[in-house]
Amino acid sequence: MLEKIKGVNLGGWLVLEKWMTPELFEGTQAEDEYYLAHDLEKEAYQARILNHRSEFITEADFIRIASAGLNLIRIPIPYFAFGDRPPFIGCLPYLDKAFNWAKAYDIKILLDLHTVPGSQNGFDNGGISGVCRWGQDPKEVDFALSVLTRLAQRYRDHEALWGIQLINEPITEKMWGTMKPLERYPARDPKLAAGSGPLSMKFLQSFYLEAYTKLREILLPETVIAFHDAFELHAWKDCFLDHAFENVMLDTHQYLMFAEMEGTEQNLEAYLNYLEALGKEIAEVAAYIPVFVGEWSLFNSYAVGVDTQGGINPTQQTFDSNKQFSAEELVEVYQILWKKSVETWNIGEGHMFWTYKLNIDTINDPSWYGWDSWDLSRCLSKKWIS
Amino acid sequence: MLEKIKGVNLGGWLVLEKWMTPELFEGTQAEDEYYLAHDLEKEAYQARILNHRSEFITEADFIRIASAGLNLIRIPIPYFAFGDRPPFIGCLPYLDKAFNWAKAYDIKILLDLHTVPGSQNGFDNGGISGVCRWGQDPKEVDFALSVLTRLAQRYRDHEALWGIQLINEPITEKMWGTMKPLERYPARDPKLAAGSGPLSMKFLQSFYLEAYTKLREILLPETVIAFHDAFELHAWKDCFLDHAFENVMLDTHQYLMFAEMEGTEQNLEAYLNYLEALGKEIAEVAAYIPVFVGEWSLFNSYAVGVDTQGGINPTQQTFDSNKQFSAEELVEVYQILWKKSVETWNIGEGHMFWTYKLNIDTINDPSWYGWDSWDLSRCLSKKWIS
Repeated sequence: MLEKIKGVNLGGWLVLEKWMTPELFEGTQAEDEYYLAHDLEKEAYQARILNHRSEFITEADFIRIASAGLNLIRIPIPYFAFGDRPPFIGCLPYLDKAFNWAKAYDIKILLDLHTVPGSQNGFDNGGISGVCRWGQDPKEVDFALSVLTRLAQRYRDHEALWGIQLINEPITEKMWGTMKPLERYPARDPKLAAGSGPLSMKFLQSFYLEAYTKLREILLPETVIAFHDAFELHAWKDCFLDHAFENVMLDTHQYLMFAEMEGTEQNLEAYLNYLEALGKEIAEVAAYIPVFVGEWSLFNSYAVGVDTQGGINPTQQTFDSNKQFSAEELVEVYQILWKKSVETWNIGEGHMFWTYKLNIDTINDPSWYGWDSWDLSRCLSKKWIS
Repeated sequence: MLEKIKGVNLGGWLVLEKWMTPELFEGTQAEDEYYLAHDLEKEAYQARILNHRSEFITEADFIRIASAGLNLIRIPIPYFAFGDRPPFIGCLPYLDKAFNWAKAYDIKILLDLHTVPGSQNGFDNGGISGVCRWGQDPKEVDFALSVLTRLAQRYRDHEALWGIQLINEPITEKMWGTMKPLERYPARDPKLAAGSGPLSMKFLQSFYLEAYTKLREILLPETVIAFHDAFELHAWKDCFLDHAFENVMLDTHQYLMFAEMEGTEQNLEAYLNYLEALGKEIAEVAAYIPVFVGEWSLFNSYAVGVDTQGGINPTQQTFDSNKQFSAEELVEVYQILWKKSVETWNIGEGHMFWTYKLNIDTINDPSWYGWDSWDLSRCLSKKWIS
């Protein structure tokens, strides 16, 4: 058991998002991983993906993460991890290596099923933009369960396995209304998107229950099974009180861009007040279920110097030129936010930064100014965090 | 003018060496960059190379290098940088980006022409193993001069340009006998290798003189022109006294593996004695020409725990299992060597570590144990250097 989780996500490695590794999408019309695989010729796709997986994260990154005092890595996993969903390419060899690096450098791993066929949220990071139909297809729901059980079987006895997360950011009515994924991430093929809509809480709880039951049988008792809260932190009390789950934790993702979308003013004081209030909410939930913040970052519109409208990024929209802070001012702003955030997340079980690394270029493409606060490796070098 | 150079090489980025990025060579028989380009289909080659260049070094690396207090980056450049030597792919867009990153993060750049057609040394890092014929072909000597002048014209006014190095590690009789490149890096095609042999000092001095004259006309007066010593630190006195060179420096590469090949015992005391003696030699040369150590590393057989026979690596030979030190012992050994080395190099103008980054995996392929001491990014994380 970890004391407090001090973790980081390996976003953009085995699950791709265009804004995180734009160079992988160069020369294609693809806005997401689905179309990257379908638009490129097989050999070119294979060369890009395999080279990316070999280079984006290496042993040296695990060494650096350990040396920064982090104790957990959350790894987003695609549904095609086992290589049984062509044209996508399986990624087990990379995952196996990661487990061995984690063990060698005394870091734990949370496996996070980040995508499912047909998508659970319609976000680009669900694998296919503007499509959200997974829950409507019982065969694909079963497929997701089979991926989870196969992951559990493969890694159950590995010393580095800390937990498995059943599914990342499934979306229900509430977030469907706030994020409007079909507008924010327009579908390329209306036929594939037809009938997309949010998951029901009832479906999601039933999926969690079934997946929990299957995994609890396979995993060691001390291995955590994590439920994402579907952006509804307070919706789970009855579920947890009604079921005698063993070693389950609730994962909640907390971004300042959500606060901004809900009307929080774009300044430091407002962010700190928001975090203060959020701490009370976390404490309330922590009274009946261990809760961790599986994704968060320093990113906010105030430091970017322009209203990002809830984290829209330069691959999606051109922004007016922003007000730039000095290097010293940025250190001050981000350090204040880092401290307050970590203090807040530690009211629960701890936190995992999104993300370790981004291949954006704020110098040769200055429209990325400010988005570097998503990148822990830069935050470390720039002394924005400690 | 920099006070003391505290630099690092971006090896394995624009010039490839198989041992530094083995994943790029996977599935091929290529032992060097020449055959990688010739063995792969055009599209696969292009995908690998472009993805590698985009991912291996990014803005984040320049940020980290600056945050570690380094002030100079030496960038090995291939002769095909301008894209006029198919099937090789030019690399100017990446170099342009690097210059802008360097400027943004207050780092200077030394451009180092690392390969020439037909090779100047027969090493894998000369571009084609076991071939050393460049100096015999006046057309290719002229081509090298044209690459140098074009580089000078392109970057002369860029604030980040510190210097240009005329050619990396040209090899004369002395090193030809010690390193035996034709044995150490066997040629794949005897026809291409036929007639390979060391350069003469006379040829090299005449090449340097011609290149110097051309570049001095183009470059700003404060921009350094660097001559590699061809592994003969003391051979240049007359040359420098005979010519009124302006702003020229001598680059000498100093590796403990050379000391081992010359018979230095493989233990810490012997290395320290070797460095002490080397410091006196550097002082002697520094009396008539500014001298810097453009390549060095912490790598040594003692810390690897096996006789590496002058730095042979696991892509070339299988070694007996080595004696492994504890993490604490390694910190101690490497810190002692780091301090003594830097102190020695600073008798001259300073130093540039080889290299910033390696894609080796010491956990999943333990035969690489010890070769991680070539990797500055790991040395920083592991606190082997300070």
